[in-house]
Amino acid sequence: MQEFIQAAQSMLIFANHFNSNVFHLICLMEKDRVFLCRALEIAVQGVNEGGGPFGALIAKDGRIIAESWNNVVLSADPTAHAEINAIRKACEILGTHDLADCILYSSCEPCPMCLGAVYWAGIKKVVYAFDRKEAEKAGFSDKFIYDEIMLEPSSRHVRFLHIPGCCNGPDPFRKWNENENKIPY
Amino acid sequence: MQEFIQAAQSMLIFANHFNSNVFHLICLMEKDRVFLCRALEIAVQGVNEGGGPFGALIAKDGRIIAESWNNVVLSADPTAHAEINAIRKACEILGTHDLADCILYSSCEPCPMCLGAVYWAGIKKVVYAFDRKEAEKAGFSDKFIYDEIMLEPSSRHVRFLHIPGCCNGPDPFRKWNENENKIPY
Repeated sequence: MQEFIQAAQSMLIFANHFNSNVFHLICLMEKDRVFLCRALEIAVQGVNEGGGPFGALIAKDGRIIAESWNNVVLSADPTAHAEINAIRKACEILGTHDLADCILYSSCEPCPMCLGAVYWAGIKKVVYAFDRKEAEKAGFSDKFIYDEIMLEPSSRHVRFLHIPGCCNGPDPFRKWNENENKIPY
Repeated sequence: MQEFIQAAQSMLIFANHFNSNVFHLICLMEKDRVFLCRALEIAVQGVNEGGGPFGALIAKDGRIIAESWNNVVLSADPTAHAEINAIRKACEILGTHDLADCILYSSCEPCPMCLGAVYWAGIKKVVYAFDRKEAEKAGFSDKFIYDEIMLEPSSRHVRFLHIPGCCNGPDPFRKWNENENKIPY
Protein backbone atom coordinates (compact mmCIF):
# COMPACT_ATOMS: atom_id res chain seq x y z
CA MET A 1 0.00 0.00 0.00
CA GLN A 2 2.89 2.35 0.93
CA GLU A 3 4.53 1.68 -2.46
CA PHE A 4 1.27 2.36 -4.28
CA ILE A 5 0.89 5.74 -2.54
CA GLN A 6 4.48 6.68 -3.36
CA ALA A 7 4.00 5.74 -7.05
CA ALA A 8 0.76 7.76 -7.20
CA GLN A 9 2.49 10.78 -5.65
CA SER A 10 5.35 10.56 -8.20
CA MET A 11 2.86 10.40 -11.05
CA LEU A 12 1.01 13.44 -9.68
CA ILE A 13 4.24 15.48 -9.41
CA PHE A 14 5.20 14.48 -12.97
CA ALA A 15 1.73 15.40 -14.30
CA ASN A 16 1.79 18.79 -12.58
CA HIS A 17 5.29 19.50 -13.90
CA PHE A 18 4.23 18.42 -17.41
CA ASN A 19 1.09 20.58 -17.28
CA SER A 20 3.09 23.55 -16.03
CA ASN A 21 5.56 23.23 -18.93
CA VAL A 22 2.77 22.83 -21.49
CA PHE A 23 0.95 25.81 -20.00
CA HIS A 24 4.18 27.86 -20.17
CA LEU A 25 4.65 26.86 -23.84
CA ILE A 26 1.04 27.81 -24.70
CA CYS A 27 1.52 31.19 -22.99
CA LEU A 28 4.71 31.79 -24.99
CA MET A 29 2.97 30.88 -28.27
CA GLU A 30 0.04 33.10 -27.35
CA LYS A 31 2.39 36.01 -26.60
CA ASP A 32 4.08 35.50 -30.00
CA ARG A 33 0.68 35.77 -31.68
CA VAL A 34 -0.36 38.85 -29.70
CA PHE A 35 2.90 40.69 -30.51
CA LEU A 36 2.78 39.60 -34.16
CA CYS A 37 -0.79 40.92 -34.49
CA ARG A 38 0.46 44.21 -33.03
CA ALA A 39 3.21 44.31 -35.71
CA LEU A 40 0.50 43.84 -38.38
CA GLU A 41 -1.57 46.66 -36.85
CA ILE A 42 1.50 48.93 -36.94
CA ALA A 43 2.01 48.08 -40.63
CA VAL A 44 -1.59 49.06 -41.47
CA GLN A 45 -1.16 52.25 -39.42
CA GLY A 46 2.02 52.93 -41.45
CA VAL A 47 0.06 52.79 -44.73
CA ASN A 48 -2.56 55.15 -43.27
CA GLU A 49 0.22 57.60 -42.36
CA GLY A 50 1.85 57.49 -45.83
CA GLY A 51 4.48 54.84 -45.02
CA GLY A 52 5.15 51.41 -46.56
CA PRO A 53 3.06 48.33 -45.59
CA PHE A 54 5.51 46.92 -43.04
CA GLY A 55 5.46 47.06 -39.23
CA ALA A 56 7.84 45.75 -36.57
CA LEU A 57 8.44 45.77 -32.85
CA ILE A 58 11.16 44.71 -30.42
CA ALA A 59 10.16 42.89 -27.22
CA LYS A 60 12.34 42.27 -24.16
CA ASP A 61 11.31 40.27 -21.07
CA GLY A 62 7.78 39.98 -22.45
CA ARG A 63 7.30 43.73 -22.97
CA ILE A 64 7.36 45.90 -26.10
CA ILE A 65 10.25 48.38 -26.01
CA ALA A 66 10.22 49.80 -29.57
CA GLU A 67 7.78 49.92 -32.49
CA SER A 68 8.07 51.29 -36.02
CA TRP A 69 6.71 51.14 -39.53
CA ASN A 70 8.52 51.54 -42.86
CA ASN A 71 8.99 55.24 -43.70
CA VAL A 72 11.48 55.07 -46.63
CA VAL A 73 9.74 57.66 -48.79
CA LEU A 74 8.66 60.02 -46.00
CA SER A 75 12.17 60.19 -44.52
CA ALA A 76 14.02 59.94 -47.89
CA ASP A 77 16.03 57.08 -46.38
CA PRO A 78 16.20 53.70 -48.20
CA THR A 79 17.32 52.01 -44.96
CA ALA A 80 14.24 53.17 -43.00
CA HIS A 81 12.54 49.75 -43.00
CA ALA A 82 10.28 48.87 -40.07
CA GLU A 83 12.79 46.38 -38.61
CA ILE A 84 15.85 48.66 -38.96
CA ASN A 85 13.90 51.54 -37.39
CA ALA A 86 12.70 49.36 -34.50
CA ILE A 87 16.21 47.96 -33.88
CA ARG A 88 17.75 51.46 -33.89
CA LYS A 89 15.04 52.75 -31.51
CA ALA A 90 15.49 49.81 -29.12
CA CYS A 91 19.28 50.34 -29.09
CA GLU A 92 18.81 54.02 -28.35
CA ILE A 93 16.47 53.22 -25.46
CA LEU A 94 18.75 50.52 -24.00
CA GLY A 95 21.99 52.43 -24.75
CA THR A 96 23.67 49.44 -26.42
CA HIS A 97 24.19 47.92 -29.87
CA ASP A 98 23.52 44.46 -28.37
CA LEU A 99 19.92 43.19 -28.39
CA ALA A 100 20.76 39.58 -27.45
CA ASP A 101 17.81 39.36 -25.00
CA CYS A 102 15.28 40.75 -27.47
CA ILE A 103 12.79 39.27 -29.95
CA LEU A 104 11.88 40.91 -33.27
CA TYR A 105 8.26 40.69 -34.40
CA SER A 106 7.73 41.76 -38.00
CA SER A 107 4.64 41.84 -40.23
CA CYS A 108 6.77 40.34 -43.04
CA GLU A 109 9.89 38.16 -43.35
CA PRO A 110 12.84 40.56 -42.96
CA CYS A 111 14.59 41.45 -46.24
CA PRO A 112 18.36 40.70 -46.50
CA MET A 113 19.19 44.19 -45.17
CA CYS A 114 17.01 43.72 -42.07
CA LEU A 115 18.14 40.09 -41.66
CA GLY A 116 21.73 41.38 -41.55
CA ALA A 117 20.73 43.93 -38.91
CA VAL A 118 19.15 41.12 -36.83
CA TYR A 119 22.46 39.22 -36.80
CA TRP A 120 24.60 42.28 -36.07
CA ALA A 121 22.25 43.21 -33.18
CA GLY A 122 22.60 39.67 -31.77
CA ILE A 123 18.83 39.05 -31.80
CA LYS A 124 18.14 35.30 -31.32
CA LYS A 125 14.49 35.01 -32.41
CA VAL A 126 12.40 36.55 -35.21
CA VAL A 127 8.64 36.02 -35.63
CA TYR A 128 6.92 37.05 -38.87
CA ALA A 129 3.54 36.71 -40.64
CA PHE A 130 3.94 37.26 -44.42
CA ASP A 131 6.91 35.99 -46.44
CA ARG A 132 9.16 37.28 -49.26
CA LYS A 133 6.88 35.83 -51.98
CA GLU A 134 3.87 37.70 -50.60
CA ALA A 135 5.99 40.89 -50.45
CA GLU A 136 6.92 40.31 -54.12
CA LYS A 137 3.23 40.06 -55.09
CA ALA A 138 2.66 43.44 -53.39
CA GLY A 139 5.44 44.97 -55.53
CA PHE A 140 8.52 44.81 -53.25
CA SER A 141 12.00 43.51 -54.18
CA ASP A 142 12.70 41.34 -51.11
CA LYS A 143 12.74 38.06 -53.08
CA PHE A 144 14.79 39.59 -55.91
CA ILE A 145 17.46 40.75 -53.41
CA TYR A 146 17.48 37.29 -51.76
CA ASP A 147 18.00 35.75 -55.22
CA GLU A 148 20.80 38.24 -56.03
CA ILE A 149 22.65 37.69 -52.75
CA MET A 150 22.94 33.96 -53.56
CA LEU A 151 24.94 34.76 -56.72
CA GLU A 152 28.68 35.37 -57.04
CA PRO A 153 29.27 39.15 -56.71
CA SER A 154 30.43 39.35 -60.35
CA SER A 155 27.17 37.75 -61.63
CA ARG A 156 24.67 40.12 -60.04
CA HIS A 157 22.52 42.83 -61.66
CA VAL A 158 24.40 45.43 -59.59
CA ARG A 159 28.04 45.59 -60.76
CA PHE A 160 30.35 44.45 -57.93
CA LEU A 161 33.96 45.33 -58.80
CA HIS A 162 36.61 43.75 -56.56
CA ILE A 163 40.00 45.51 -56.67
CA PRO A 164 42.24 43.75 -54.13
CA GLY A 165 45.40 45.55 -52.96
CA CYS A 166 44.33 48.55 -55.00
CA CYS A 167 46.87 51.08 -53.77
CA ASN A 168 49.42 49.10 -51.73
CA GLY A 169 48.44 51.51 -49.02
CA PRO A 170 46.32 51.62 -45.90
CA ASP A 171 45.28 48.25 -44.42
CA PRO A 172 42.39 48.87 -41.98
CA PHE A 173 42.30 45.25 -40.73
CA ARG A 174 46.03 45.29 -39.80
CA LYS A 175 45.45 48.64 -38.08
CA TRP A 176 42.48 47.12 -36.21
CA ASN A 177 44.43 44.03 -35.09
CA GLU A 178 47.31 46.19 -33.85
CA ASN A 179 44.97 48.51 -31.90
CA GLU A 180 45.13 47.44 -28.25
CA ASN A 181 42.24 49.74 -27.26
CA LYS A 182 39.74 48.30 -29.75
CA ILE A 183 36.29 47.22 -28.56
CA PRO A 184 35.33 44.09 -30.57
CA TYR A 185 31.67 43.97 -31.61
CA MET B 1 43.71 58.73 -105.19
CA GLN B 2 40.47 60.29 -103.94
CA GLU B 3 39.32 56.89 -102.60
CA PHE B 4 42.66 56.34 -100.85
CA ILE B 5 42.39 59.70 -99.07
CA GLN B 6 38.82 58.93 -97.96
CA ALA B 7 39.85 55.51 -96.61
CA ALA B 8 42.81 57.05 -94.74
CA GLN B 9 40.53 59.72 -93.24
CA SER B 10 38.05 57.05 -92.08
CA MET B 11 40.85 55.05 -90.44
CA LEU B 12 42.09 58.18 -88.68
CA ILE B 13 38.63 59.00 -87.35
CA PHE B 14 38.22 55.37 -86.13
CA ALA B 15 41.68 55.42 -84.45
CA ASN B 16 40.95 58.72 -82.70
CA HIS B 17 37.55 57.44 -81.54
CA PHE B 18 39.14 54.17 -80.32
CA ASN B 19 41.90 56.04 -78.46
CA SER B 20 39.37 58.37 -76.90
CA ASN B 21 37.29 55.41 -75.63
CA VAL B 22 40.37 53.62 -74.27
CA PHE B 23 41.52 56.85 -72.61
CA HIS B 24 38.05 57.32 -71.11
CA LEU B 25 38.12 53.72 -69.79
CA ILE B 26 41.58 54.19 -68.27
CA CYS B 27 40.40 57.42 -66.58
CA LEU B 28 37.36 55.60 -65.17
CA MET B 29 39.52 52.77 -63.81
CA GLU B 30 41.94 55.29 -62.35
CA LYS B 31 39.07 57.14 -60.67
CA ASP B 32 37.80 53.84 -59.19
CA ARG B 33 41.26 53.26 -57.68
CA VAL B 34 41.55 56.81 -56.33
CA PHE B 35 38.13 56.66 -54.67
CA LEU B 36 38.75 53.15 -53.33
CA CYS B 37 42.04 54.26 -51.77
CA ARG B 38 40.13 57.11 -50.14
CA ALA B 39 37.65 54.57 -48.68
CA LEU B 40 40.62 52.65 -47.22
CA GLU B 41 42.04 55.85 -45.73
CA ILE B 42 38.63 56.58 -44.13
CA ALA B 43 38.61 53.05 -42.64
CA VAL B 44 42.05 53.59 -41.04
CA GLN B 45 40.90 56.99 -39.78
CA GLY B 46 37.85 55.22 -38.29
CA VAL B 47 40.07 52.87 -36.26
CA ASN B 48 42.10 55.86 -35.04
CA GLU B 49 38.87 57.52 -33.87
CA GLY B 50 37.59 54.42 -32.03
CA GLY B 51 35.41 53.08 -34.85
CA GLY B 52 35.47 49.75 -36.70
CA PRO B 53 37.96 49.07 -39.55
CA PHE B 54 35.58 49.85 -42.42
CA GLY B 55 35.28 52.98 -44.59
CA ALA B 56 32.94 53.93 -47.43
CA LEU B 57 32.01 56.81 -49.68
CA ILE B 58 29.33 57.65 -52.22
CA ALA B 59 30.36 59.31 -55.51
CA LYS B 60 28.04 61.01 -58.02
CA ASP B 61 29.13 62.49 -61.37
CA GLY B 62 32.78 61.84 -60.48
CA ARG B 63 32.64 63.70 -57.14
CA ILE B 64 32.48 62.44 -53.55
CA ILE B 65 29.20 63.44 -51.88
CA ALA B 66 29.31 61.45 -48.61
CA GLU B 67 31.92 59.62 -46.54
CA SER B 68 31.71 57.54 -43.36
CA TRP B 69 33.37 54.89 -41.26
CA ASN B 70 31.82 52.18 -39.10
CA ASN B 71 30.78 53.56 -35.70
CA VAL B 72 28.63 50.73 -34.30
CA VAL B 73 30.08 50.80 -30.79
CA LEU B 74 30.49 54.58 -30.49
CA SER B 75 26.90 55.26 -31.55
CA ALA B 76 25.42 52.11 -29.89
CA ASP B 77 23.80 51.31 -33.24
CA PRO B 78 24.37 47.87 -34.85
CA THR B 79 23.28 49.27 -38.23
CA ALA B 80 25.94 52.03 -38.23
CA HIS B 81 28.18 50.33 -40.81
CA ALA B 82 30.32 52.55 -43.05
CA GLU B 83 28.14 51.82 -46.13
CA ILE B 84 24.79 52.34 -44.37
CA ASN B 85 26.07 55.61 -42.84
CA ALA B 86 27.37 56.85 -46.21
CA ILE B 87 24.11 55.92 -48.00
CA ARG B 88 22.02 57.69 -45.34
CA LYS B 89 24.24 60.79 -45.51
CA ALA B 90 24.10 60.91 -49.33
CA CYS B 91 20.29 60.59 -49.25
CA GLU B 92 20.05 63.40 -46.71
CA ILE B 93 22.23 65.64 -48.89
CA LEU B 94 20.33 64.83 -52.10
CA GLY B 95 16.89 64.79 -50.43
CA THR B 96 15.90 61.44 -51.94
CA HIS B 97 15.93 57.73 -51.13
CA ASP B 98 17.05 57.01 -54.73
CA LEU B 99 20.82 56.87 -55.41
CA ALA B 100 20.53 55.39 -58.93
CA ASP B 101 23.25 57.72 -60.31
CA CYS B 102 25.70 56.99 -57.49
CA ILE B 103 28.62 54.57 -56.98
CA LEU B 104 29.52 53.06 -53.60
CA TYR B 105 33.21 52.64 -52.78
CA SER B 106 33.86 50.49 -49.72
CA SER B 107 37.07 49.29 -48.07
CA CYS B 108 35.46 45.82 -47.76
CA GLU B 109 32.81 43.78 -49.58
CA PRO B 110 29.46 44.99 -48.16
CA CYS B 111 27.87 42.58 -45.64
CA PRO B 112 24.33 41.30 -46.39
CA MET B 113 22.80 44.24 -44.50
CA CYS B 114 24.76 46.80 -46.53
CA LEU B 115 24.23 44.84 -49.77
CA GLY B 116 20.48 45.05 -49.11
CA ALA B 117 20.80 48.81 -48.58
CA VAL B 118 22.65 49.10 -51.93
CA TYR B 119 19.73 47.44 -53.74
CA TRP B 120 17.04 49.44 -51.92
CA ALA B 121 18.93 52.68 -52.73
CA GLY B 122 19.06 51.70 -56.41
CA ILE B 123 22.89 51.95 -56.57
CA LYS B 124 24.16 50.28 -59.78
CA LYS B 125 27.89 49.85 -59.03
CA VAL B 126 29.91 48.88 -55.95
CA VAL B 127 33.74 48.89 -55.80
CA TYR B 128 35.54 47.20 -52.89
CA ALA B 129 39.06 46.18 -51.82
CA PHE B 130 38.88 43.42 -49.14
CA ASP B 131 36.37 40.56 -49.19
CA ARG B 132 34.19 38.69 -46.67
CA LYS B 133 36.91 36.08 -46.00
CA GLU B 134 39.43 38.77 -45.06
CA ALA B 135 36.78 40.37 -42.82
CA GLU B 136 36.28 36.97 -41.16
CA LYS B 137 40.03 36.68 -40.45
CA ALA B 138 39.84 40.09 -38.74
CA GLY B 139 37.05 38.81 -36.47
CA PHE B 140 33.87 40.00 -38.24
CA SER B 141 30.76 37.90 -39.01
CA ASP B 142 30.17 38.97 -42.63
CA LYS B 143 30.86 35.49 -44.08
CA PHE B 144 28.83 33.78 -41.34
CA ILE B 145 25.80 35.97 -42.14
CA TYR B 146 26.22 35.28 -45.89
CA ASP B 147 26.28 31.54 -45.09
CA GLU B 148 23.18 31.87 -42.86
CA ILE B 149 21.17 33.83 -45.42
CA MET B 150 21.59 30.99 -47.94
CA LEU B 151 19.76 28.58 -45.57
CA GLU B 152 16.04 28.04 -45.21
CA PRO B 153 14.75 30.40 -42.46
CA SER B 154 13.91 27.42 -40.21
CA SER B 155 17.49 26.03 -40.45
CA ARG B 156 19.41 29.11 -39.28
CA HIS B 157 21.19 29.76 -35.96
CA VAL B 158 18.72 32.59 -35.31
CA ARG B 159 15.23 31.13 -34.79
CA PHE B 160 12.90 32.33 -37.58
CA LEU B 161 9.28 31.53 -36.68
CA HIS B 162 6.77 31.93 -39.51
CA ILE B 163 3.14 32.28 -38.34
CA PRO B 164 1.02 32.91 -41.45
CA GLY B 165 -2.48 34.33 -40.98
CA CYS B 166 -1.77 34.64 -37.27
CA CYS B 167 -4.80 36.65 -36.22
CA ASN B 168 -7.15 36.69 -39.23
CA GLY B 169 -6.84 40.41 -38.85
CA PRO B 170 -5.03 43.32 -40.48
CA ASP B 171 -3.57 42.72 -43.96
CA PRO B 172 -1.05 45.51 -44.68
CA PHE B 173 -0.46 44.43 -48.30
CA ARG B 174 -4.18 44.56 -49.15
CA LYS B 175 -4.36 47.97 -47.46
CA TRP B 176 -1.33 49.09 -49.55
CA ASN B 177 -2.82 47.85 -52.83
CA GLU B 178 -6.12 49.59 -52.12
CA ASN B 179 -4.41 52.89 -51.24
CA GLU B 180 -4.70 55.17 -54.28
CA ASN B 181 -2.34 57.77 -52.79
CA LYS B 182 0.58 55.38 -52.25
CA ILE B 183 4.06 56.30 -53.52
CA PRO B 184 5.71 53.03 -54.72
CA TYR B 185 9.42 52.78 -53.88
